[in-house]
Amino acid sequence: MDFERIKNKLDALLEAGKKAELRGALTMLNEVDIAEYLQTLDNEKVLMVFRLLPKDISAEVFAYMDNDQRTRLMEALDDNEAMRIIDEMFIDDAVDFLEELPAGVVKRMLANADPSKRDLINQFLRYPENSAGRIMTIEYIEFHVGTTVGQAMAEIRRTAPDKETINTLYVLDDRRVLLGTVGLRQVLLADDGRRIEELMNQQVISVRTTDDQELVADTVRKYDLLSIPVVDHEDRLVGIVTVDDIVDVIEEENTEDFEKMAAMLPSEDTYLKTSVLRLAWHRFPWLLILMISAMFTGGIITHFEDVLASAQGIGVAIVSCIPMLMDTGGNCGAQASTLVIRGLALGEVSPRDVGRILWKELRVAVLLGVVLSIVNFLRIWWFTAYSRDVAFVVSLAMFCTIVIAKAIGSTLPLAAKAVHLDPALMASPIITTIVDAASLLILFTIATSMFHIGA
Amino acid sequence: MDFERIKNKLDALLEAGKKAELRGALTMLNEVDIAEYLQTLDNEKVLMVFRLLPKDISAEVFAYMDNDQRTRLMEALDDNEAMRIIDEMFIDDAVDFLEELPAGVVKRMLANADPSKRDLINQFLRYPENSAGRIMTIEYIEFHVGTTVGQAMAEIRRTAPDKETINTLYVLDDRRVLLGTVGLRQVLLADDGRRIEELMNQQVISVRTTDDQELVADTVRKYDLLSIPVVDHEDRLVGIVTVDDIVDVIEEENTEDFEKMAAMLPSEDTYLKTSVLRLAWHRFPWLLILMISAMFTGGIITHFEDVLASAQGIGVAIVSCIPMLMDTGGNCGAQASTLVIRGLALGEVSPRDVGRILWKELRVAVLLGVVLSIVNFLRIWWFTAYSRDVAFVVSLAMFCTIVIAKAIGSTLPLAAKAVHLDPALMASPIITTIVDAASLLILFTIATSMFHIGA
Repeated sequence: MDFERIKNKLDALLEAGKKAELRGALTMLNEVDIAEYLQTLDNEKVLMVFRLLPKDISAEVFAYMDNDQRTRLMEALDDNEAMRIIDEMFIDDAVDFLEELPAGVVKRMLANADPSKRDLINQFLRYPENSAGRIMTIEYIEFHVGTTVGQAMAEIRRTAPDKETINTLYVLDDRRVLLGTVGLRQVLLADDGRRIEELMNQQVISVRTTDDQELVADTVRKYDLLSIPVVDHEDRLVGIVTVDDIVDVIEEENTEDFEKMAAMLPSEDTYLKTSVLRLAWHRFPWLLILMISAMFTGGIITHFEDVLASAQGIGVAIVSCIPMLMDTGGNCGAQASTLVIRGLALGEVSPRDVGRILWKELRVAVLLGVVLSIVNFLRIWWFTAYSRDVAFVVSLAMFCTIVIAKAIGSTLPLAAKAVHLDPALMASPIITTIVDAASLLILFTIATSMFHIGA
Repeated sequence: MDFERIKNKLDALLEAGKKAELRGALTMLNEVDIAEYLQTLDNEKVLMVFRLLPKDISAEVFAYMDNDQRTRLMEALDDNEAMRIIDEMFIDDAVDFLEELPAGVVKRMLANADPSKRDLINQFLRYPENSAGRIMTIEYIEFHVGTTVGQAMAEIRRTAPDKETINTLYVLDDRRVLLGTVGLRQVLLADDGRRIEELMNQQVISVRTTDDQELVADTVRKYDLLSIPVVDHEDRLVGIVTVDDIVDVIEEENTEDFEKMAAMLPSEDTYLKTSVLRLAWHRFPWLLILMISAMFTGGIITHFEDVLASAQGIGVAIVSCIPMLMDTGGNCGAQASTLVIRGLALGEVSPRDVGRILWKELRVAVLLGVVLSIVNFLRIWWFTAYSRDVAFVVSLAMFCTIVIAKAIGSTLPLAAKAVHLDPALMASPIITTIVDAASLLILFTIATSMFHIGA
């Protein structure tokens, strides 16, 4: 990695105490790389290097640092320095940072902020967590109906440096209701005397402040937007969400799905920053529930204990197939449920498609079931001492297990979605546990009837 | 959904044959919604409605349709209409479309295209699949060193309507080597007489045409970019990738990871569009490999068959715990591997962190192991007829299984990454199979030595 080389050079300058040179070197870097470099330093050096940064980039570097380090740095800086950083940050970055801080620290910080900024930040912090209101920014350019292109251009030139994006401009009426959007390129091309609303696109796609960030991300992705306006319940414009923040939301939501699908409670922290106790706590509930469920599966074996005791090693033969049957069933179910969960997340399938999906999965299951059962039959018949009857029992159980696994795996996520539960919960771990019980029931039922064992 | 209402209205107009009104209604919709509406119609009506669309939006609607329908529509349109659409599309959308078509059709289409467009498309189609070259666009604005701000503004006004993004402008030298970027806002604010290179930011983050799209997505995400320049091996600018395309790449890569982690070969088609045979084929290899591996796990049971035959139902008690042990082990391993795989994908952990990760997982494992073993011990002791010794054997096996599952689950993805394999392959299915074998070995070894059975 190039980063190692950069770090070595900066470390050398830092070690030698060449502050001016270090400052010069830092200005050659991207803010993200500077933040990454700061992560590798201890607290004292972080403070020193941070103070070397030119004022205009220190706030941005701060926005890219991780939360722990930001909090420590805030504590080390004096109130003036701290407030200057908050003031320089885009509002969405500032809110993002402040919401992670203890309430007491936030109060102290805001006490020193200028009143308008303070009111604004407080207002943002009141929106529900993970809502559009929390991730939006107010650094956009707006015009009221009646503004001319000439006035608009003057305004853009005057305010553009403070705005996150100037690609799209927003047109409001007197009550701040969003009427439409205008692309900067349209303004650039129009005559100075024209009124802004003549250029306006009225088919505006927007979200509400209280909408979940997942809905915001889905909408931006669906319509390929670079930014989306956020309106309140009276359709008044209050902010915009830009696509670079959406990219983070998408990764966050994906991580949540991965975690839920692996039987964990979702967490917002990165792995290495999460404490052992917290990691254990997030994993415990599902492990316990699934362990207890699997105990009942074990009860099936106890119920059929006559099979185990039956003659000529048939019991051992049957039992030794349990891992293979359980694993194959679990894998088949996981394949189906993963595809359906993913399809639901991307809006490619919906619970209404249950018929088509089930029909598709059943055909896939029959195909896979036939091939795998034959492989399995031949393996037992050719390579073990067991009879063809044992091979037949196991292979038939295998076929039935695969069909049931595919059916359960594909329909449970759809059912969850239909009753407004998260489909991601119906993933591999639960499917596996259910399919395990089904496969053992099938295996032992077939075995008892084939070999005329017990009741 | 609102979409249902829109569809009903449009269907009514279509049914009544009111073409002019239908055209009017369509112009009120977003291109994405029009494409979605077209998906619900049969071929004949699609052609009819598509021809009603105003020329300036039909190409964009076309870009949002799915591949099957685009291909059918292309076949139904005459060559002139078809070429006009290709000509109107942004180059990245056109390439995206053409690369899915049969080679013969592409040839026919390009034969009618104007020569410069044809050369360009051919050049794009030569880049490797899933590379930056394939997803880039050439609709950006570039200036050569020496251009003044006044000249630049004139050029922007002249060419902006054809460009995908004008937020960032690119500065090249005479050999087209990328020297830096200028934000549109800087140009707007500068005096007409200044030269463009004075405003230029030289710390440009770029990718190469042959870089994998995953690297492009990671870079855009890391640096929060709205677009990234793509250069050839001599650092000459050849295109840009915009963040809206990156959002699609990210979802594509996530879907691939989900599929690999559920023991499937990744597929680029959506679920409902994939044939049964193809679905089965993508699921077959891993199912077979894992089934055969699980056969060896079954062999462990056969090897310890003395335990099964041992006195006083101890055999049944031990066997009935197998599902619980296998499932809990598999779930524990899946939890650890999922977090590590996800951390690797997001660049939050790297193989160098193996020590910290293993130490963390072992502590989590001990915590979870102690609690779950105790629950398990009490359950067997209190609620079953089995002796405390059986309860002890099973609980000890449970503890060891959890520790081993966490250790294997967390380290295998890191090992895969270290040898440049995809960590996503080391997910739940493989971990489960390995942990199954380990847990049965532990269970039977402890049981034989506790109860002094067999050799």
